[in-house]
Amino acid sequence: MSIKIDKKIKLQKLNDGFEISINEITVLRHTIEQPMLYVGYGEEKIDMYRGNFDIKDYVIERTALRYATVEESDDSTLIRFSKYPKGEESLIISIKEEQQRLKLEFDQKDKMINRIWLRAAADQDEKVYGCGEQLSYFNMRGKNFPLWTSEPGVGRNKTTYTTWQADVKDKAGGDYYNTNFPQPTYVSSKKYYCHVETTAYADFDFQNDSFHELQIWDIPKYVLFEAADSFVSLVEKITALFGRQPELPEWTYNGVWLGIQGGTDVVEEKLERALAKGVKVGGVWCQDWQGKRITSFGKRLMWNWRWNPEEYPNLDQKTKEWKEKGIRFLGYINPYVAIEGDLYKTASEKGYLALNEQGEDYLVDFGEFYCGVVDFTNPEAYEWYKEVIKDNLIDFGLDGWMADFGEYLPTDVVLKNGVSAKIMHNAWPAIWAKVNYEAVQESGKLGEVVYFMRAGYTGSQKYCTLLWAGDQSVNWSLDDGLASVIPAALSSGMIGCGLSHSDIGGYTSLHGNKRTKELFMRWAEMGAFTPVMRTHEGNRPDDCFQFDGDEETLEHFARMTNVYVKLAPYTKELVKMNAESGLPVQRPLFMHYEEDEKSYDIQYQYLYGSDLLVAPVYEEKKEKWSVYLPEDEWVHLWTGEEYNGGGVEVDVPLGYPAVFYRKNSVFAKLFKEVSTI
Amino acid sequence: MSIKIDKKIKLQKLNDGFEISINEITVLRHTIEQPMLYVGYGEEKIDMYRGNFDIKDYVIERTALRYATVEESDDSTLIRFSKYPKGEESLIISIKEEQQRLKLEFDQKDKMINRIWLRAAADQDEKVYGCGEQLSYFNMRGKNFPLWTSEPGVGRNKTTYTTWQADVKDKAGGDYYNTNFPQPTYVSSKKYYCHVETTAYADFDFQNDSFHELQIWDIPKYVLFEAADSFVSLVEKITALFGRQPELPEWTYNGVWLGIQGGTDVVEEKLERALAKGVKVGGVWCQDWQGKRITSFGKRLMWNWRWNPEEYPNLDQKTKEWKEKGIRFLGYINPYVAIEGDLYKTASEKGYLALNEQGEDYLVDFGEFYCGVVDFTNPEAYEWYKEVIKDNLIDFGLDGWMADFGEYLPTDVVLKNGVSAKIMHNAWPAIWAKVNYEAVQESGKLGEVVYFMRAGYTGSQKYCTLLWAGDQSVNWSLDDGLASVIPAALSSGMIGCGLSHSDIGGYTSLHGNKRTKELFMRWAEMGAFTPVMRTHEGNRPDDCFQFDGDEETLEHFARMTNVYVKLAPYTKELVKMNAESGLPVQRPLFMHYEEDEKSYDIQYQYLYGSDLLVAPVYEEKKEKWSVYLPEDEWVHLWTGEEYNGGGVEVDVPLGYPAVFYRKNSVFAKLFKEVSTI
Repeated sequence: MSIKIDKKIKLQKLNDGFEISINEITVLRHTIEQPMLYVGYGEEKIDMYRGNFDIKDYVIERTALRYATVEESDDSTLIRFSKYPKGEESLIISIKEEQQRLKLEFDQKDKMINRIWLRAAADQDEKVYGCGEQLSYFNMRGKNFPLWTSEPGVGRNKTTYTTWQADVKDKAGGDYYNTNFPQPTYVSSKKYYCHVETTAYADFDFQNDSFHELQIWDIPKYVLFEAADSFVSLVEKITALFGRQPELPEWTYNGVWLGIQGGTDVVEEKLERALAKGVKVGGVWCQDWQGKRITSFGKRLMWNWRWNPEEYPNLDQKTKEWKEKGIRFLGYINPYVAIEGDLYKTASEKGYLALNEQGEDYLVDFGEFYCGVVDFTNPEAYEWYKEVIKDNLIDFGLDGWMADFGEYLPTDVVLKNGVSAKIMHNAWPAIWAKVNYEAVQESGKLGEVVYFMRAGYTGSQKYCTLLWAGDQSVNWSLDDGLASVIPAALSSGMIGCGLSHSDIGGYTSLHGNKRTKELFMRWAEMGAFTPVMRTHEGNRPDDCFQFDGDEETLEHFARMTNVYVKLAPYTKELVKMNAESGLPVQRPLFMHYEEDEKSYDIQYQYLYGSDLLVAPVYEEKKEKWSVYLPEDEWVHLWTGEEYNGGGVEVDVPLGYPAVFYRKNSVFAKLFKEVSTI
Repeated sequence: MSIKIDKKIKLQKLNDGFEISINEITVLRHTIEQPMLYVGYGEEKIDMYRGNFDIKDYVIERTALRYATVEESDDSTLIRFSKYPKGEESLIISIKEEQQRLKLEFDQKDKMINRIWLRAAADQDEKVYGCGEQLSYFNMRGKNFPLWTSEPGVGRNKTTYTTWQADVKDKAGGDYYNTNFPQPTYVSSKKYYCHVETTAYADFDFQNDSFHELQIWDIPKYVLFEAADSFVSLVEKITALFGRQPELPEWTYNGVWLGIQGGTDVVEEKLERALAKGVKVGGVWCQDWQGKRITSFGKRLMWNWRWNPEEYPNLDQKTKEWKEKGIRFLGYINPYVAIEGDLYKTASEKGYLALNEQGEDYLVDFGEFYCGVVDFTNPEAYEWYKEVIKDNLIDFGLDGWMADFGEYLPTDVVLKNGVSAKIMHNAWPAIWAKVNYEAVQESGKLGEVVYFMRAGYTGSQKYCTLLWAGDQSVNWSLDDGLASVIPAALSSGMIGCGLSHSDIGGYTSLHGNKRTKELFMRWAEMGAFTPVMRTHEGNRPDDCFQFDGDEETLEHFARMTNVYVKLAPYTKELVKMNAESGLPVQRPLFMHYEEDEKSYDIQYQYLYGSDLLVAPVYEEKKEKWSVYLPEDEWVHLWTGEEYNGGGVEVDVPLGYPAVFYRKNSVFAKLFKEVSTI
């Protein structure tokens, strides 16, 4: 028997089970021997230390639901799952088509269940991408990926000394899967995506040959599968579901956003020096506009979200002056309020903060200082924080900010909406994004004001105007250095966040890592081929080589900002495409070369739009760089040399990263002009 | 209803389950809500690299057997366990009394089961000991303990730099539970033991308040519980079950076994120097009697088990000369044969070696050299290896040897008896012990010849004449240095191996660790209060301070050997007691002070017999040392100062470890004499 749920979705009965396919792709297969569903219950232990989570699970029972009966009703097909023949049903799944998507809804009958393991059918050669922003593995096949927003880790690889030190000193080393932006959504090389609608802890395991096992610590609201005929069409469908980012403000394309700290005079001085050297500047970004503090970690901010006139005298005037020159001012905010500030006082008095079990304000340790957590589940607190953003940021004259954090919601916090913080934890980054989004929208400034976030979750697609790849170490490590931001952009692009960028030069200089001149230069080169160029001084500016560290760097940097500005007409097209159809700005090679098998495993090169191929140099002291080109007519940007695909090696002196354009691009003339900069 | 299985063992029916007790101690409790049994199946991945195992388990199902029916038959009580009411039975347990022990036998009905989790009833305050030789935790409550014989690890603590380096370079860092000698037997502070008869991988989890969860990757042959009125009685019962070690040879008490290498002349010279300085020597122990090789790890041996006359000219004569002086010669053997040697050739030709899946000799990488595994499941190979020991070791004149290794049986080896190597892996150390035991026994030399082992498993109690605590790092670390050998002796003593000792000075000097003079001296001090004193040059002798490193050390060392020899009449009594009743020579404080609550958590002090309390100094640069004394009349060995118990602090200059004797001891006179040495 075969039930056509709609023309794309088909349920085929098997001897002792069934198969469900979309676009002829089998996505679910169930037999008594190989059931698609396991349920059970566990007791988790979750400890947080400064955004780093130690999560252990004791699975007490995990039982296959082998016995399934399929039953058709008016608008859906019901599948009743039991543990044993003719046993009580543990779970009922209703299957239906909704806007060409296969939708699974769950009706929990066995009340003990707090874990499910759903198996999606897989092929041995299949690859999988997405799951939010993944920094170590773009193709996730062969590993499991816990999905829980957290600090991404310092080092992120247990075999590096940096990671070990970070683990021992601060429990902060992380591992390949740690990310600020997880999302229970994967994209298969078989051209379908699967999305699990849940904010519970999840762990997607792609280690098995014949199935992907999706573990969720709750019954999900629903699960979606949708297929497409091409990857371009697939990302369009994904963003039709999750939403899309608006375009970037026009002023972005004026040049780099210079990350500077230290007060009005320092900023003015550094800016003037940069401009005098020919650096194209779109904005100055001053994290410490609201004041700073010094901790053993390095320079930290005050976390009371309003202009600090002691630190930044005349800033109210300066922002106007700079704006007239085409340079916008950007600041910083996050969803916590430091106990020393007036915002904390207000929030505490009005009951806007999340509580501990004793009913007191829950204070979170952010590393030698403490903050309250604004409880966004309290509608009044939510509205209040929007007003803080409108009044203290937008109205003051900020045209952008880093909307930092969102990953730290402790799991033992008591929230106004009464929902467990274990369920709200993953939801927090997207709620935080929405607070920003609405503040900007209600100010009528969407498309004019931009905020950038590292934390994310389902919903960030619509509510976060720009991602940044978080806090890389200032080094060359694959898992936490320059290279890691490439898979980060590619993976988030696959699930609908098509605008990404990173701290030029990286951020974290702990445990002996210091940012070298060469690292800064290579990172700046890559930044010119991303939608936004932005520098960061790092957590310990004195340990980090800066853009104005010497004349040679300043000149190199000025040239790269000129490349960025020259490319702007092309970049704008890409950003527009992302806003309209969800096609990410940075794309994996297979997005446009589906037939090229090799392209599916490339994670340190990207297509910048369809017409540029960028292979950033992510190792030090390299004079030549090996690049893989899919079959096409490619022109090496800097030399004009032509290639037809395959493995090639090109010279990569500083300032000349390996970049190629398609000979037949309508932007070929522009690219030629870039090549002469 | 209450079924009395015998006068000590009682099964009490509950509303929806039952309880089983021995000596009024509830050891098993089962209800529908809190079942005592979970079953399931998993797929393990086991990778070995030089004796270090990476073991992962994917548990596919784990289901409670909630429904139990109790049924009495002629000689036992049957409990039928099912997953659901009136469902098919998955497992039947027969319960009976056998020699006052509660015995559970399993009849597997569901053939898919390859994992069981058995819960023993626990109290919150209960402590647990044993599980073989545990080096980090004597009381195991609060942690889980995988039970799989392996290299113990270099560092054994993920927060130490040594461990991290060992992990990254050689996958060899280990963790708190890694041990050469695991055993699925624990002893509860409630005065019962529980033994699981299996050689499959197991993991005993003592983290829960109300139960201990015993995970076994097979259906065990049986499970035993036995209780006693005192700990002294309990260890007697344990050793009645497992067997006991014979007494040590009389010559042991002549003095230290000097670990020397380098050939006859070097040995002679070092021995003479030691004797001239007044060192009391019972034996010279020359690992390299059969030749050596140099690897990047350090000095390694040739692994072809016969006298190497190039390395040791005249050794056949020398052993006789030394014997006349009261000094015995000890060597080295292990259960592998290096491919370069004639033993390998013989074994290979006769089919005595374990095979790979292609039917070829399985070669194991021991670190830059390869060996065959003598297949002890082949009766001919077993007998042959006994002959090697008789002919090449005993008949040649060896009176003792290190019977090294036993932990490396790869899990993909093909054995003659057809049993999976995953099941034989843990069995191997005790089989290897038995090979040695029978060779010695058949030579009529039990009690005259002694061999010492680091690897062990159930059965080592009877077949291993002496334990040594394995390869400590030459440092002060708690988990892998001097201190770690104390819990090692205490835990193995609890499960019936009452004779233990360690490499004086430790062994492993990798990753920057070098043995200091002070470490050597403190270790020698402790060694004087163990049944055997033996030195080891270490894996890199040049990085290790040696007993003859300078005059001061040699004098200190001589003095400690004199203490050891002077104590011999007392030590011999203890060793005899161990042979007769299984009461270990080194004992936890609670063995004789059951009422003292504090004594249950002390793992770095021990009672040496009932009359000496030894608190070794295991930190460097200590002039004073804090000791806990249970309530009694104690005399500080070196000063004669008297104490009545509680926390005390004493001076501990080098050569004067914190040792106390019971004022009323019948050996008080002897102890006074020792104090004057």
